[in-house]
Amino acid sequence: MAERLLVIGGDAGGMAAASQARRQQPYMEIVALERGRWTSYSACGIPYLVAGDVGSHEELIARTPEEFRDRQRIDVRMGHEAIGIDLASRKVEVRDHTRDRTLQLGFDLLHIATGAHPIRPPLPGIDSPYVHGVQTLDDGIHLLEHAERGGCETAVVVGGGYIGVEMAEAFLRRGMKVTLVEADEQVMRTMDPDMAAPIATALRQLGIDVRLGVKAEGFEDGVVHTSAGSIRADIVVLGLGVAPNAGLAADAGLKTGVRGAIRVNRRQQASVDGVYAAGDCAESYHRVTQRQVHVALGTVANKQGRVAGLNLGGGYATFPGVIGTAITKVCDFEVARTGVNQEEADRAGFEYETVKIDSTTRAGYFPGTQPITIKMLAERDTRRVLGAQIVGREGAAKRIDVLATAITAEMTVDDVIDLDLAYAPPFSGVWDAVHIAARKGAEALDRAVASRLR
Amino acid sequence: MAERLLVIGGDAGGMAAASQARRQQPYMEIVALERGRWTSYSACGIPYLVAGDVGSHEELIARTPEEFRDRQRIDVRMGHEAIGIDLASRKVEVRDHTRDRTLQLGFDLLHIATGAHPIRPPLPGIDSPYVHGVQTLDDGIHLLEHAERGGCETAVVVGGGYIGVEMAEAFLRRGMKVTLVEADEQVMRTMDPDMAAPIATALRQLGIDVRLGVKAEGFEDGVVHTSAGSIRADIVVLGLGVAPNAGLAADAGLKTGVRGAIRVNRRQQASVDGVYAAGDCAESYHRVTQRQVHVALGTVANKQGRVAGLNLGGGYATFPGVIGTAITKVCDFEVARTGVNQEEADRAGFEYETVKIDSTTRAGYFPGTQPITIKMLAERDTRRVLGAQIVGREGAAKRIDVLATAITAEMTVDDVIDLDLAYAPPFSGVWDAVHIAARKGAEALDRAVASRLR
Repeated sequence: MAERLLVIGGDAGGMAAASQARRQQPYMEIVALERGRWTSYSACGIPYLVAGDVGSHEELIARTPEEFRDRQRIDVRMGHEAIGIDLASRKVEVRDHTRDRTLQLGFDLLHIATGAHPIRPPLPGIDSPYVHGVQTLDDGIHLLEHAERGGCETAVVVGGGYIGVEMAEAFLRRGMKVTLVEADEQVMRTMDPDMAAPIATALRQLGIDVRLGVKAEGFEDGVVHTSAGSIRADIVVLGLGVAPNAGLAADAGLKTGVRGAIRVNRRQQASVDGVYAAGDCAESYHRVTQRQVHVALGTVANKQGRVAGLNLGGGYATFPGVIGTAITKVCDFEVARTGVNQEEADRAGFEYETVKIDSTTRAGYFPGTQPITIKMLAERDTRRVLGAQIVGREGAAKRIDVLATAITAEMTVDDVIDLDLAYAPPFSGVWDAVHIAARKGAEALDRAVASRLR
Repeated sequence: MAERLLVIGGDAGGMAAASQARRQQPYMEIVALERGRWTSYSACGIPYLVAGDVGSHEELIARTPEEFRDRQRIDVRMGHEAIGIDLASRKVEVRDHTRDRTLQLGFDLLHIATGAHPIRPPLPGIDSPYVHGVQTLDDGIHLLEHAERGGCETAVVVGGGYIGVEMAEAFLRRGMKVTLVEADEQVMRTMDPDMAAPIATALRQLGIDVRLGVKAEGFEDGVVHTSAGSIRADIVVLGLGVAPNAGLAADAGLKTGVRGAIRVNRRQQASVDGVYAAGDCAESYHRVTQRQVHVALGTVANKQGRVAGLNLGGGYATFPGVIGTAITKVCDFEVARTGVNQEEADRAGFEYETVKIDSTTRAGYFPGTQPITIKMLAERDTRRVLGAQIVGREGAAKRIDVLATAITAEMTVDDVIDLDLAYAPPFSGVWDAVHIAARKGAEALDRAVASRLR
């Protein structure tokens, strides 16, 4: 096999594939194109770079182009942007920004990992240089420069999702006055409203001015205009979600799906032979709703990239999909979710019961024990756990992984009650909070059956 | 149903059953006998009581006899010891220590939860009052009194299991000079030797004098004689494991099994109709080895008690068994295990591969990230995860729950790689340490196949 694998995109979805393909095929030619200046960096680390937790943007880089070249013989070409794909002649047209020229590169195998871009609604002034997206490492570097510049005292974050609350904390910890503007009536729309309410409370207690039901309407230098008046802003960040960079693939004739993301099968194969895609530009399969979804997360990009790389290298691997797990923290307030929330469960047509419990992260009497609230959704009849949401303090949120594993295994609430989870007073109560939620879930399902029989 | 349920034993295995039965049957008569002074307390909290983390022994009591009486109408009789069971006439002979009299109590349903007792090898001086077991709340109170007494400066802990290392830390934090004597060549025999070695190192770094391969041979006031000389000891604690209190049940003709524990089926029914058992006095089923085992842990006692109570109350419930999960910490050094270790896997006849990985509890660049080492055992051919062990610092050990859940679901290493675990830089790397262990496990299994085909 003396083929050429061409990879478009030098971050997780692309380089995880390139690395894995190399491990399978020592002699394959692997060329990777990256239009920017960086490979394989942690975009999720940007809020912590801006906050000052991370000393330099270089710490966010997992592997440099030189490392890919020297250790894995991957020919990474920086400043090279794919601008057209010809699937019939199996060639990519490439703009080499470093030498200001255009070239053509043939491929036997193509892997597309073009990522996503922050959504920028067409509002007046949105393209001004002080309105930042948070997506690339360059975004992070610009934000940091801007935040460190003298006179940067007020920040407005537009959108109260994960990036929004993380950036709000980052600015707060830089000593800035922070306003978070969210068009919806709650922050964190991936959480149910009753679980999002304590998050907004926690943000406000930290000193963040959270304005719900307020729409950003335009940006001027130093001011954000909203549906409820103007707010001073030396810096603005957009946290309105991202959209896949799938135009290049679509223009080439590859099928796209949810939100325009590239359609892939379980092996990460796109709709044409020998063409794969992974990461923020591609669709995922949701194992609970059994529907295609678009998830832009580093974990998913790495997993999909690995699977694509195994297949590109002549192996056989499938990616069984996601279940919508996510986590964040704001100062010491932790938030996590997995599976479906109520809105998603309703949309997917599930019949379910919900329960919510308050417990502690350690034995109630143990020093440093912290509050944890778990909400659980369980399907009627099958008694399967469909979803869970956690809010709490230190040590609370990572418990979501137990529920993510249980949901993946299609466990019932009764199965979860029986789980042999680790107990010692510094780590949990004798019934872990996860157990307690499952017990309440079982009781709610029992009551639902009883009331139907009555 | 106007029956009488008689419960022998007022701690977790007994009172969880009594409470659950009450919830099912509002009118059933429930009498519970407790020979000691306390109900439903956290024996696992005793080391933290002695260390001074917990202000008073009362904080370890989950529910008092009065609360059981007033809230649940459970007739708890303190200072009452069952001294004989007549299964034919369905009566229990009871010694009432409070009034120094013996009485007979009939029952329709009987639940035995007599617990366990610390193993005391027949060594000279072992019954002296300064050689303590760590089992009952009274043990904890005596230990605390002893430790707080003036002149208590040296402690010897015999046995390096969970209780042993927890008590060693407790004495250390009281400012005592602590020696831990372990007859085996490693501490924590539920861990493989290579995972136990760093625990011994951590104990020594804390200042505990760990003596491996040393046997206690006798006790005199102020001195412990060992196979390697004498050690000064103002206080001695035994951490040599526990044996079930099953003599009463065995004498009555109930079947016993592993280590003499009461044999029960999946509904916690003993070998005679209408008689149940739960907790430290009863056997458990190990879901990985598919063998009966004896596990004396509060979590298991609570789960078994709940299942017994559901059945005693006329419901239907089964306890599917344990997988040997356990956790502890010594200062900030955390230890956990689940499933089988190598010795257990060998004894059960599994063919398996082992891998060991070093990772971090948070993103490598994130402040406060701590080391975590995971060892994983995976079965050849089926690729199932059979067991896992974790050592590390803060935030490491509770990750064992993900692996416990995966093992329960009979997941393969490949299933674990695909788990949608929660990622954000303050909580894990983009590949969680659990993922990394599973990836190494998959590679090891692949290599094993390749080497067999060669």
